[in-house]
Amino acid sequence: MQRRIVLIGCGVVGQGFLEILVRKKEMLEREFSFEPVLVGVADMMKGSILVNEGIDIPGFMVHVKAKGTVHDFPAEGAIVGLNSLDLLEQAEADIMVEVTYTDIKTGEPATSHIRKAFERGMCVATTNKGPMALHFRDLSKLAEAKNVLFRYEGVVMSGTPIFDLLEYCLAGNEIQEIKGILNGTTNFMLTKMEEENMSYPDALALAQKLGYAEADPTADVEGFDALAKVVILSNVVLGGNISPADAQERVGISGITIEDIRKAKAEEMRYKLIGSARKEHGKIIASVRPEKLPLSDPLAGVGGAVNALTFKTDLSGPITIQGSGAGKLETGFAILIDVLNMHKEM
Amino acid sequence: MQRRIVLIGCGVVGQGFLEILVRKKEMLEREFSFEPVLVGVADMMKGSILVNEGIDIPGFMVHVKAKGTVHDFPAEGAIVGLNSLDLLEQAEADIMVEVTYTDIKTGEPATSHIRKAFERGMCVATTNKGPMALHFRDLSKLAEAKNVLFRYEGVVMSGTPIFDLLEYCLAGNEIQEIKGILNGTTNFMLTKMEEENMSYPDALALAQKLGYAEADPTADVEGFDALAKVVILSNVVLGGNISPADAQERVGISGITIEDIRKAKAEEMRYKLIGSARKEHGKIIASVRPEKLPLSDPLAGVGGAVNALTFKTDLSGPITIQGSGAGKLETGFAILIDVLNMHKEM
Repeated sequence: MQRRIVLIGCGVVGQGFLEILVRKKEMLEREFSFEPVLVGVADMMKGSILVNEGIDIPGFMVHVKAKGTVHDFPAEGAIVGLNSLDLLEQAEADIMVEVTYTDIKTGEPATSHIRKAFERGMCVATTNKGPMALHFRDLSKLAEAKNVLFRYEGVVMSGTPIFDLLEYCLAGNEIQEIKGILNGTTNFMLTKMEEENMSYPDALALAQKLGYAEADPTADVEGFDALAKVVILSNVVLGGNISPADAQERVGISGITIEDIRKAKAEEMRYKLIGSARKEHGKIIASVRPEKLPLSDPLAGVGGAVNALTFKTDLSGPITIQGSGAGKLETGFAILIDVLNMHKEM
Repeated sequence: MQRRIVLIGCGVVGQGFLEILVRKKEMLEREFSFEPVLVGVADMMKGSILVNEGIDIPGFMVHVKAKGTVHDFPAEGAIVGLNSLDLLEQAEADIMVEVTYTDIKTGEPATSHIRKAFERGMCVATTNKGPMALHFRDLSKLAEAKNVLFRYEGVVMSGTPIFDLLEYCLAGNEIQEIKGILNGTTNFMLTKMEEENMSYPDALALAQKLGYAEADPTADVEGFDALAKVVILSNVVLGGNISPADAQERVGISGITIEDIRKAKAEEMRYKLIGSARKEHGKIIASVRPEKLPLSDPLAGVGGAVNALTFKTDLSGPITIQGSGAGKLETGFAILIDVLNMHKEM
């Protein structure tokens, strides 16, 4: 069955998603009766194109890679130069994929894209933390009112399943607490400091060199990124309604020295930047801080630029899932699984 | 919506499932529109009862706990004393829950129960390794021919999701390899040997005392239990069609001494009993053997009577899930999630 898709954001994740659609074309049709039709793409840097008759995906990908632009891809009947909201207004699509950059302070422009898509009766798959950390409840209500689906598996831990795990595999459990390593950059740095006796500034410089950390590393090393994810998990998984300002604590790793790490190692302990949330008397207690874990803790063994999350459940006990927290194909896959699960339910 | 359930096997797991149905009654109705009606129970030791009008579950549980019998539960119109196959013949049920003991050599009586249920148009949820290790392909075909559903989440790692994880959360990925700690008893023993300098015989005696190991511990310590799970994963996840005799290797932990473990520890390595399977030129390569893992391996950090499994995927990278591999509520939950997922699809 054909599903008409409009893609907002054509950076690494958007292109990763398109690459998967091309690589897995036959399998997706054979096993899931899923035939994607790309009707429009808008990107702040690369321009926009709308072709309601459908865009040839393999040809489009070659073009984007070669030219770095979207608007001048040759296609009959193409409408070019629309801004993203006008493009959504004119696109005839079943699903919007929202993978623009994250602005954690305003949630824009992603939140406006999602609202517009819902208003136009489209289902939405997104990997964008901004709208999820700031407007999850409003957006969910709007999706319900418009009778469309809203999916966001890639928002936390990219292609490592969290929200689908709860919905399809752990349904019936009460989730009592979540606790995890939600930022790969800081976990990479802590691992290097312990395993290679690297100082904090050297570990940071290496993370920046490898592209794990930004030039301004504040969001990672001071725990803001992990906190946004804790807030999202609190609201989606624990039924809370908090914003980052409501957290009890946000401490990053910039105060951790190699001496702290050595001392912990001598005690058979290990520092990890832990994000956690639980409900106490109906109130969410959420925090991000470095914690010294015994080596027997499932999270202590998680090394490198990897994410992991433990769910404490009432029936299944503690369940921990570990995997990549970033990456082109990994995050592209998160969009794919959202689109496939919506495709089944539409 | 009412779903009529017949329960074959009323031991720890069967009673765990019933306990969950009682504890979660309101939630299951409210969130899943799921109203279970228990129409019959058969157990080799406790007798059988068939009440097509429905059995009061809380009262039945009190009776089973107090008396250790099933057949003399007072219920109007009850038919008692049928053997399990005759009970299945006369039961009016939508779903059979099969949780009898595992016979890994013959797969009986569970395989006959499952066939009979399919013949009678019932969907099946089971936690029984026997039929799955020996007859998965035949049983799947029969379910398909009879247009009924067949679910078995609890067969490997009890309430820690494996098969649902693949179906609902990782669909679209090619699974290239599976590798895991699939036997909690041996992992408990290895952990005790390393952490408390316990000898192999002492660790085994402790595992037996705590009820993790049987009086005859062969199935656990020689790797037969782990191998049955590797075979099931090979056939279900990798699309193979192998039996335990087709495995390349099956070595247990009985040859591992405390000196081996100490030596590994000095090299920052750790022994784990690893079950693994991959496809090579269309052929399944499956094995169980102790492996010395670097401490950075996600499986090296898994301590105690816990299970863990890594899926190597082509899009999402390696994904590891860790959790309980046994337990009354945990395995009872595995049946619940199977029943809920079938309920949605029926």
